[in-house]
Amino acid sequence: MSDLEAPAQMDKKMIDLNSDVGESFGAYTLGLDDEVIPLVTSANIACGYHAGDPAVMRRTVSLAAANSVGIGAHPGLPDLMGFGRRAMAAGLEEIKGYLAYQIGALQAFAAMAGKQLQHVKPHGALYNMAERDPAIWEATAEVMAAVDRDLILFLPAATDRGVLDLIGRTHGVRPAREFFADRAYERDGRLVPRKLPGAVIRDHQRAAEQVLRMVTEGVVVCRDESRIPLTAETVCVHGDNPEALNLVRHIRQRLTEAGVAIRPVGEFL
Amino acid sequence: MSDLEAPAQMDKKMIDLNSDVGESFGAYTLGLDDEVIPLVTSANIACGYHAGDPAVMRRTVSLAAANSVGIGAHPGLPDLMGFGRRAMAAGLEEIKGYLAYQIGALQAFAAMAGKQLQHVKPHGALYNMAERDPAIWEATAEVMAAVDRDLILFLPAATDRGVLDLIGRTHGVRPAREFFADRAYERDGRLVPRKLPGAVIRDHQRAAEQVLRMVTEGVVVCRDESRIPLTAETVCVHGDNPEALNLVRHIRQRLTEAGVAIRPVGEFL
Amino acid sequence: MSDLEAPAQMDKKMIDLNSDVGESFGAYTLGLDDEVIPLVTSANIACGYHAGDPAVMRRTVSLAAANSVGIGAHPGLPDLMGFGRRAMAAGLEEIKGYLAYQIGALQAFAAMAGKQLQHVKPHGALYNMAERDPAIWEATAEVMAAVDRDLILFLPAATDRGVLDLIGRTHGVRPAREFFADRAYERDGRLVPRKLPGAVIRDHQRAAEQVLRMVTEGVVVCRDESRIPLTAETVCVHGDNPEALNLVRHIRQRLTEAGVAIRPVGEFL
Amino acid sequence: MSDLEAPAQMDKKMIDLNSDVGESFGAYTLGLDDEVIPLVTSANIACGYHAGDPAVMRRTVSLAAANSVGIGAHPGLPDLMGFGRRAMAAGLEEIKGYLAYQIGALQAFAAMAGKQLQHVKPHGALYNMAERDPAIWEATAEVMAAVDRDLILFLPAATDRGVLDLIGRTHGVRPAREFFADRAYERDGRLVPRKLPGAVIRDHQRAAEQVLRMVTEGVVVCRDESRIPLTAETVCVHGDNPEALNLVRHIRQRLTEAGVAIRPVGEFL
Repeated sequence: MSDLEAPAQMDKKMIDLNSDVGESFGAYTLGLDDEVIPLVTSANIACGYHAGDPAVMRRTVSLAAANSVGIGAHPGLPDLMGFGRRAMAAGLEEIKGYLAYQIGALQAFAAMAGKQLQHVKPHGALYNMAERDPAIWEATAEVMAAVDRDLILFLPAATDRGVLDLIGRTHGVRPAREFFADRAYERDGRLVPRKLPGAVIRDHQRAAEQVLRMVTEGVVVCRDESRIPLTAETVCVHGDNPEALNLVRHIRQRLTEAGVAIRPVGEFL
Repeated sequence: MSDLEAPAQMDKKMIDLNSDVGESFGAYTLGLDDEVIPLVTSANIACGYHAGDPAVMRRTVSLAAANSVGIGAHPGLPDLMGFGRRAMAAGLEEIKGYLAYQIGALQAFAAMAGKQLQHVKPHGALYNMAERDPAIWEATAEVMAAVDRDLILFLPAATDRGVLDLIGRTHGVRPAREFFADRAYERDGRLVPRKLPGAVIRDHQRAAEQVLRMVTEGVVVCRDESRIPLTAETVCVHGDNPEALNLVRHIRQRLTEAGVAIRPVGEFL
Repeated sequence: MSDLEAPAQMDKKMIDLNSDVGESFGAYTLGLDDEVIPLVTSANIACGYHAGDPAVMRRTVSLAAANSVGIGAHPGLPDLMGFGRRAMAAGLEEIKGYLAYQIGALQAFAAMAGKQLQHVKPHGALYNMAERDPAIWEATAEVMAAVDRDLILFLPAATDRGVLDLIGRTHGVRPAREFFADRAYERDGRLVPRKLPGAVIRDHQRAAEQVLRMVTEGVVVCRDESRIPLTAETVCVHGDNPEALNLVRHIRQRLTEAGVAIRPVGEFL
Repeated sequence: MSDLEAPAQMDKKMIDLNSDVGESFGAYTLGLDDEVIPLVTSANIACGYHAGDPAVMRRTVSLAAANSVGIGAHPGLPDLMGFGRRAMAAGLEEIKGYLAYQIGALQAFAAMAGKQLQHVKPHGALYNMAERDPAIWEATAEVMAAVDRDLILFLPAATDRGVLDLIGRTHGVRPAREFFADRAYERDGRLVPRKLPGAVIRDHQRAAEQVLRMVTEGVVVCRDESRIPLTAETVCVHGDNPEALNLVRHIRQRLTEAGVAIRPVGEFL
C-alpha cells in the first residue's frame, strides 16, 4: 500500500498497461484481442453480463495467460443490449451480487488455465456510477476481499484519498489508480466528458506524451492548460481498431525509450 | 473412493439427502427453500442459467451455511424460459464453459459466506443429456478438477462403473451416486420415464421404504417387481410444496429410526 | 377526446378497472390472473421484457378475450432480473424500439385470439420515467400512432393537460387517465411515494370510497386532508393475492351500488 | 397457389433473391446490410431471439423499405449465445409462441415504416428442425394465418408437395420454395451437409450457373452429377463479407443477362 504514497513508486518507473478485452459474444466478434493482448500487461475481461460468454472468457483467459498478462475481471451491469453503458438504479446489494457472480465466473476460467485473477475493474456505467457514489467502490472491495483478498481494484486516478484508504484499510484490497491515455483531463483530475470537444486525444504523439509525463513526473496537463499532480499505476489503452493498436505501440515505444518498465500491476503494486 | 465398493459404506449406514433449491429469480419465488434446507444435508443451488440470480444465490448459500448443509452447484443450460429442461444441441466445449461459469459464480458466493463448495449436480436436461452421453460426465469432471479438485459429482445410481472409475481415476473427482426417493425404477437401474404410469411414487410410506431399503440393503424393487442391487450415497428429495416437505420429514424419521445417519455426502464419501 | 373535458364524462358514470397481469414467466407463476381478470375490464399484459413469455402472453390474451376484457400491452424495460422496476439511462430512440417491439409482439397474440389491442400502459420504471420526462409519453404515443392509431395510452391522472393535448392532437392517440385505488395522493395530484407512511391504503373501505369519490365527484382527499379535483377514466387495482382480490370485489360492489357502470375504457372513451 | 404448378411461373422468368440481415445486436455489428440489401429483393430480418434488437430491427426495416425490398421476419430459437443454430427440444406450442412473438414484433417496425411484412423464414436450427418435422411448418403457417394471411412462408425447394399443399389449403398461407445459390444438392433435393466436402460452392461462376439453371430450366445438377428437377421462387444469398457480395452481384448480372426479372416474391407469387 505504501506505493500509493506517490513519488516513491514513480522512482521505480514502473507502469501497467490495461485494455478491455473478451468483449465478443456468441457469433459476434468485437475488438482485436489477439493483437492487443500481447501489447498490454493487464487484461480486463468481460464476464458475460454486458459482453463476453463462457467460450470467449475461456479463450481470452488463455490468451492472456499465454502472454503473461495479468488476468482481470471486468464485471458490468446486466445489460447486454446496452453493452453495460447505461446507468441503472440497482441497489448496492444487487450490485454486490453482480460483482461476486461475474468475478467468480472468471475465476473458474483462470483456474482452468492454472492462473489466479490479478485485478477487478468495473465496466462502463458501473465504473461511472462508482465514481459518483464511492459506496460502490467500497461494495466492490468488500466483495473482492471475500472472494480473494489478493485482488487489486482499478479506480480512477483522481479518486479521493479517503476512498483509497478505506478500500485498503477496511477491506485489505489494494487499489490501483487508472489513467486514460487518450482522454483529456479537467483540473479536478476527472475526465473531460466525451460530449465536449477535445475529450478524446486522437493525436498519438500527444497521448503518448501525456502518459509519459504522468509516469515520469506525476503530472497531467489539463484541458485548460493547467498542470495538476496525478499519479496512476495503470494506464488504460484500447484495442478496438488498427489505429488504436498503433497508439498502444507508440506508447510502449515512448515508455521504453524513457526507461520505464511496463509490467502487470500485480508485480509492482 | 473405496466407499464406492458398496457394502462397506452401507455398514456405516450413512446417507445424504439432497434437494434442488435457489430456483427463485428476481420477483419470482419458487420452492420452499426456508423449509426444505433444514431438512436436507446437501443443497443443489441454481446458478443463474436456468434459474437463480445473484441475490438468490447469495441468500441460498447463506441459508445452507447456517444449516450446515453441503453447498452444491446446480448448473443448467442457458434457458431460463424453459427452466433448463429442454435438451439443446450444445457442443462439449460449450458445455464445459457453461459449467465452469456457473460453478465459479457459485464459488464466489460460497466464499462470501466463508464456505467451500461441496458438490456439483448438473440440472435438468443437462443431467439427462449426460446420462445419454457420458462424455458430458467426463467434461463435468474435467471442469471440476480444474476448478476445485475436492468437489463431488452427483450422477445417477445406475451410472456405468466404467464412467465412475474414469471420473475418479482420470480427473481425481469423487462421484456420488444419486437415488430418487419418489421415482420408480426400471430393472436396468434407470428411472421409469415420467410419462409412464407409476413413474412417480406419491405414497409417502412406499417412498420412504424404497429409500430405507436402498440404504440398508442396497436394493431397489423395480416397477416390474424385480429386485435389483442399487447403491447410492445421496438421495434426491423435493421442497416444492408442503406435501413434498412432509415426505422429506417422513423419510428422515424412517431413516433415523432405522439407525441411519443423515449427513452431508462430503463428510463420509 | 371531448370526454377529457371532465364533468361531462362523469355524468355517464362509467369507469374502467385495470390490472397488471400476464407476469408469469417460464416455470414461474406470479399473480392470480385466473381470478382477477374476470373482475376487471382492462388487462395490462406483460410483453416479455420485464415479465411474461410467449406462452404466458398467449394464455393471458385468451383469458382476457374470454372475459371480454380490454387487451392492453404493458411494455417494460429490458430487465427481467429487476422486473422492470429499475430506472435505466436508455435513450428515447431505444425506448421507442422497446415499445414497438413489445406492443407488436402482443398484437400478434391478440390477432391469434381474433382480437385487437385496446391500450398501452408502460410498466414500472418506464411509467415512472415518463412521469418525470413527458418526452417518453410522446415517444410512446408516436409509436402507438404508427402501430395502431386506435390504441389508448394510460397515464397518471395528474398528467399535465399540455401533455394530454399533445398526445391527442399531434399523434391522434387517445389518453386515458389512471387513478390508483389503494394509493394515497399528494395535493399536486401525484402519488405519495411508497417509502412514506400511509402511501398504501390497506383499508378496503377507504380505498373503495376514494375510488367512488373520484368517479362520482371528480375529487380526491389527499394525504394532508386537502381535497383536489382529479379525474380518471381507468382505475388500477391488483390481483397479487387473495386480499387484493377482495379489495377489487369490494370496489366493484360499491361502484355498482352507486350506479356506476364498469366497462372497458375502449367502450366509452 | 397455381404458380407452384411449376413451368407456368418459370415462363415468366421471375426470381426473388433473399438474404439474412439485421443480425447485429447492441454494440455488435454483423453482416454488410447496407451493401447487401440494395442487391436483393427480400430481406429476412432477425427478430431479437437469436440476433437483432429493436434498434437494429427498426434500422433494417427502414433500409429494406428504402430499397423496395420485401420485408420478412426471420424468427429463431431463444438462443442469442448460440445464434439460434442449436436444435432445442422445444414443444410445438412453445414454438408457435416464439414465432408469433417475433413476427408481431417485426410487424410493429414495418408499421412504423409504413410497410407490411411480405414473408416469414424460420432461422437456423428452427428451419432445420422444420425440415425434419413438417409439423413445425404447419405450426408456422398456422401462426402466420392468424397474424396476417398475406404472409408468404419460405421453405426448402424440396419440401414435400403434401406439406406445401397443406400450408396453402388448410392455412391459406402461400409457400415460396427456397433455393441456395452456393450450396451443393443431393439427388433427393436436400442440401449436402456442410461437413461433407463440396457442400459449399465457392466458385462464383458455378454458383451463378446453378441459380440460372434452376430458374430457367427448373433443374439442379447434384453432387453426384445427376440432374433433378427443382423449382424455387426465391434464392438465398449472403452478405457476410465482400466476397459474398461479389457473388450476389455476379448472380444478378447473369440473371439479368438471361432476361430473368429479379423481383420481391410477393410481387409474382
